[in-house]
Amino acid sequence: MSKTISGFSKLTKEEKIDWLAKSYFNNQPEITQTIKQYWNVDEKLQQLHDDFIENTISNFYMPYGVAPNFVINGRSYAIPMVVEESSVVAAASKVAKYWSTRGGFKTEVISTTKIGQVHFMYAGDKKELETYFNQQKTELRAATASITKNMEKRGGGILDIQLVDKTDKLADYYQLHVTFETKDSMGANFINSCLEAIAKAFRKDDIEIVMSILSNYVPECLVRAEVSCKVEELGGKNPEKFAQKFEQAVKIAEIEPYRAVTHNKGIMNGIDAVVLATGNDFRAIEAGAHAYASKDGQYKSLTHCEVKDGIFRFWIEIPLALGTVGGLTALHPMAKLSLDMMQKPSARTLMQIIAAAGLAQNFAALRALTTKGIQHGHMKMHLMNILNQHKATNEEKEAVVAYFDDRTASHSAVVEKLNELRKPKVQWVDFLNEEEVRSTLANLRTDAKPLFGKMNGQQMVEHVSAVTQIANGNWNVDIYVSDEKSARRKPFLNSDSELQIGFKAPFLSEDPTPLKFNSMEEAVDDLIEQVQHFETVFNENPNRKVVHPFFGELDYEYWKKFQVKHFTHHFKQFGLV
Amino acid sequence: MSKTISGFSKLTKEEKIDWLAKSYFNNQPEITQTIKQYWNVDEKLQQLHDDFIENTISNFYMPYGVAPNFVINGRSYAIPMVVEESSVVAAASKVAKYWSTRGGFKTEVISTTKIGQVHFMYAGDKKELETYFNQQKTELRAATASITKNMEKRGGGILDIQLVDKTDKLADYYQLHVTFETKDSMGANFINSCLEAIAKAFRKDDIEIVMSILSNYVPECLVRAEVSCKVEELGGKNPEKFAQKFEQAVKIAEIEPYRAVTHNKGIMNGIDAVVLATGNDFRAIEAGAHAYASKDGQYKSLTHCEVKDGIFRFWIEIPLALGTVGGLTALHPMAKLSLDMMQKPSARTLMQIIAAAGLAQNFAALRALTTKGIQHGHMKMHLMNILNQHKATNEEKEAVVAYFDDRTASHSAVVEKLNELRKPKVQWVDFLNEEEVRSTLANLRTDAKPLFGKMNGQQMVEHVSAVTQIANGNWNVDIYVSDEKSARRKPFLNSDSELQIGFKAPFLSEDPTPLKFNSMEEAVDDLIEQVQHFETVFNENPNRKVVHPFFGELDYEYWKKFQVKHFTHHFKQFGLV
Repeated sequence: MSKTISGFSKLTKEEKIDWLAKSYFNNQPEITQTIKQYWNVDEKLQQLHDDFIENTISNFYMPYGVAPNFVINGRSYAIPMVVEESSVVAAASKVAKYWSTRGGFKTEVISTTKIGQVHFMYAGDKKELETYFNQQKTELRAATASITKNMEKRGGGILDIQLVDKTDKLADYYQLHVTFETKDSMGANFINSCLEAIAKAFRKDDIEIVMSILSNYVPECLVRAEVSCKVEELGGKNPEKFAQKFEQAVKIAEIEPYRAVTHNKGIMNGIDAVVLATGNDFRAIEAGAHAYASKDGQYKSLTHCEVKDGIFRFWIEIPLALGTVGGLTALHPMAKLSLDMMQKPSARTLMQIIAAAGLAQNFAALRALTTKGIQHGHMKMHLMNILNQHKATNEEKEAVVAYFDDRTASHSAVVEKLNELRKPKVQWVDFLNEEEVRSTLANLRTDAKPLFGKMNGQQMVEHVSAVTQIANGNWNVDIYVSDEKSARRKPFLNSDSELQIGFKAPFLSEDPTPLKFNSMEEAVDDLIEQVQHFETVFNENPNRKVVHPFFGELDYEYWKKFQVKHFTHHFKQFGLV
Repeated sequence: MSKTISGFSKLTKEEKIDWLAKSYFNNQPEITQTIKQYWNVDEKLQQLHDDFIENTISNFYMPYGVAPNFVINGRSYAIPMVVEESSVVAAASKVAKYWSTRGGFKTEVISTTKIGQVHFMYAGDKKELETYFNQQKTELRAATASITKNMEKRGGGILDIQLVDKTDKLADYYQLHVTFETKDSMGANFINSCLEAIAKAFRKDDIEIVMSILSNYVPECLVRAEVSCKVEELGGKNPEKFAQKFEQAVKIAEIEPYRAVTHNKGIMNGIDAVVLATGNDFRAIEAGAHAYASKDGQYKSLTHCEVKDGIFRFWIEIPLALGTVGGLTALHPMAKLSLDMMQKPSARTLMQIIAAAGLAQNFAALRALTTKGIQHGHMKMHLMNILNQHKATNEEKEAVVAYFDDRTASHSAVVEKLNELRKPKVQWVDFLNEEEVRSTLANLRTDAKPLFGKMNGQQMVEHVSAVTQIANGNWNVDIYVSDEKSARRKPFLNSDSELQIGFKAPFLSEDPTPLKFNSMEEAVDDLIEQVQHFETVFNENPNRKVVHPFFGELDYEYWKKFQVKHFTHHFKQFGLV
């Protein structure tokens, strides 16, 4: 089957999925099932979402979370956040609550000007161009009258049109630099429509319009958010130390680009989550914010900190061109719900809420980084994802979370722990309990067949006895185990793990040794006797150490651990436990 | 009800929603319904998504689309894209197909090094610090042994640890700058865990660790994608002109930050869509890409273009730190499906696919901008969203789309058109048709009550006749209407709109004039006679113009248009049409 296709966009959704399944999934039926399990049961609602973009085949679920307890300029907010990264919402919630008792967030809109440009080439005399521009200026505005009518009713419109000479950077290159106020709409379509109308009215033979387009660089659509309190009110064991390290961390982000990029990335975790939740365009916000961070010629932190006269102050200044009308804001039911949750904010108010969310996120990150480290909190959150990936039950989740409370939860460590929990529980043999050993062996016949290995029933009992005799000093196998090997092997005896099937100590012969006793009864009696002797020799000399031919020099405690594993291993060999 | 809350995170999902509904939605039941309509019917699947982050109350649907026909290094791909902005997937698909017959995309990974840093303060002698660092270097690596074990098996791990002196920028500030190879994982947790272990091993009394954290600035985790062909193969009416303007547009983005930011924003539309679809972290990618764009001290375009020796070349160089294992890549069923759709790429392959998607998006944007303008294509796409927002039927969609084929589809214009379609169709009265007028008025009694206004039945007929006599020159109302007013009012007569209820020309008295005729029959006969006279006087002098007391000077055609509206208005007054 050819993998290029004509008219894909004209296929129905089902036909698109069929083609994909055939061309790229080897027709596996579970592919179609996965895609369709995300369709909404309400067909009309699904159709609405399908029409947002082109070639839609399903929905990609982004988690919709809520961070309550934000106090911004004295007003309470629960902030909706759409983000796939764990710990972002938890961090925002914690910090919101923390600052809610320390005066909350103070925010202000600094400016709301948006920008668009008509880029053109002109090789003629600059004076003539200026004259033409000044003559045409009224015409250029008039050309946008039908587009700006409604915007002007709402108090917005075109602020100014300027001619900019850029010929020092690129030969013949000029711009019409146009500034806009777009009130509650993000204004992309409005600005682009205005610019295209302006370009059309500006066109003449010696002017070549290259393109007309808004700019996502909006350094004059700026908002500020701040938190502050007395240093001693910061809490914790040593608030002065905390404030000092926090300030250092911000200063580092102000001068070191490698750090600044991640510092700002963390801010954007909070910002984009609200941008997404309100149906705004996060690519536009990202581009504007990072460009602003690099505006002085070196990429820098968007937040700043000052500790002075006993006051801790932490603030952000960030350009945010947002809309609360138009676009997806009313069209996506969850975007509309997000705006309703924040009491239908104007674009100006939303700028302030989102700036506060970004500042909160950065505060959380810096607090974690400068105290316990980022991994401590982060891996806790991440843990649940790993557990879900491995379909852990609620009991398993509880056990694993408790286990990693004070341990580093790397992916492989979590999986290992989970596998350990999932292993069938071992019924360890209490080899010192004569009654238990005798009753377990009561029905074992001399010629019983093993589940693995080569020994018969009695050979096994005699083997376990023989190994006990090593500990007892009655069988010197004369094997040297280096300290290094011993150190590597001994930790196994402390673990919950069993001896592996197929493991055979190198001092043992390949085939079972001939029987020593005439009957199983005698063999079992001998085993019990050797175990009793094992107790005696170690009780007589508690410091006694005997070399085990595989694990090396073992004391009483280690020998007992070995014996438990060894007895259990061989009793399992005959299905006795 | 207080709007701050303790223990929100510990509430169940239902309890969280209840609290939100009470605190921020005035307990409207439809809020809860909106939130729950997005829950998956499969409870276990929903639980999986709920656990991705904290305080999850629902899913935010992002449209999952597919762009087929990408040919990258000779191999065909259908690229999954998660994006809420219309036209992104359509643009990618079109450009993919365009280049598939021109050699496709050529891509290569330039480097894959990732970076992390331990930031610390040290006020002592620099030589001593260097000595300590050199002594400890092996220890620092050893401290990460348990973390790097698995990564090293896969061919990754720590590449180098360097001591960096940053005291010229900030007093006492040094770094351990650590480079990593993380193979198919994005590596954030791995890098952060390594750095924290290194920091722990590096700590001593006179060294204060501020923080240990990876960098999202990854200028050495770089990929390149390119398209090229002979200029004449670019197609269109004038390929040379196209190539020249396209190159100009790229050059502008290379030197003008206002343009560069939006230029790169467009690239990120394509990149983020695939980043999201594969469960990668778009904030990390955004931060890295924009910081790279500003690396030379001025924010610049990430793509470049060259037209030379008859060859058009267009390429991108962008840092992309991605993972195809770990994180959400396997956990989110649709992210896993995305990777499967692209034939389970390695991280290196995914870098190349995503770079191609970004380049395609930029090509589409520049092609639109330098030819028809961005709004032409964009508003078409946007149109469907506006129509859905207003719950347009399929018939309405078809009509509106056809209407805006050659018109500017601003939001208000679309809504206006839609409202026009939705207005009940007007049954215009053919006032020149004697039979129609007589039969319509046949059952109207003299004292019939109007649906609006003050006239009775016969008064209305006599009024319509009187106004006809203005046109006929038999009633000189002697009202002056300025040209300016006339010019503003006359366009109404060309429209499909009706005269408004309650509208009254200023020359008419407040109350109805006394009856002129003895019966309705006589009044109707008079009306028919006046209409016949109307025809006669205008036929006798086709250039005849008579001042209408509201619309100003009207010719025959305009008078007829007015009469249709006037007759219809008054016949409706008595429910006759």
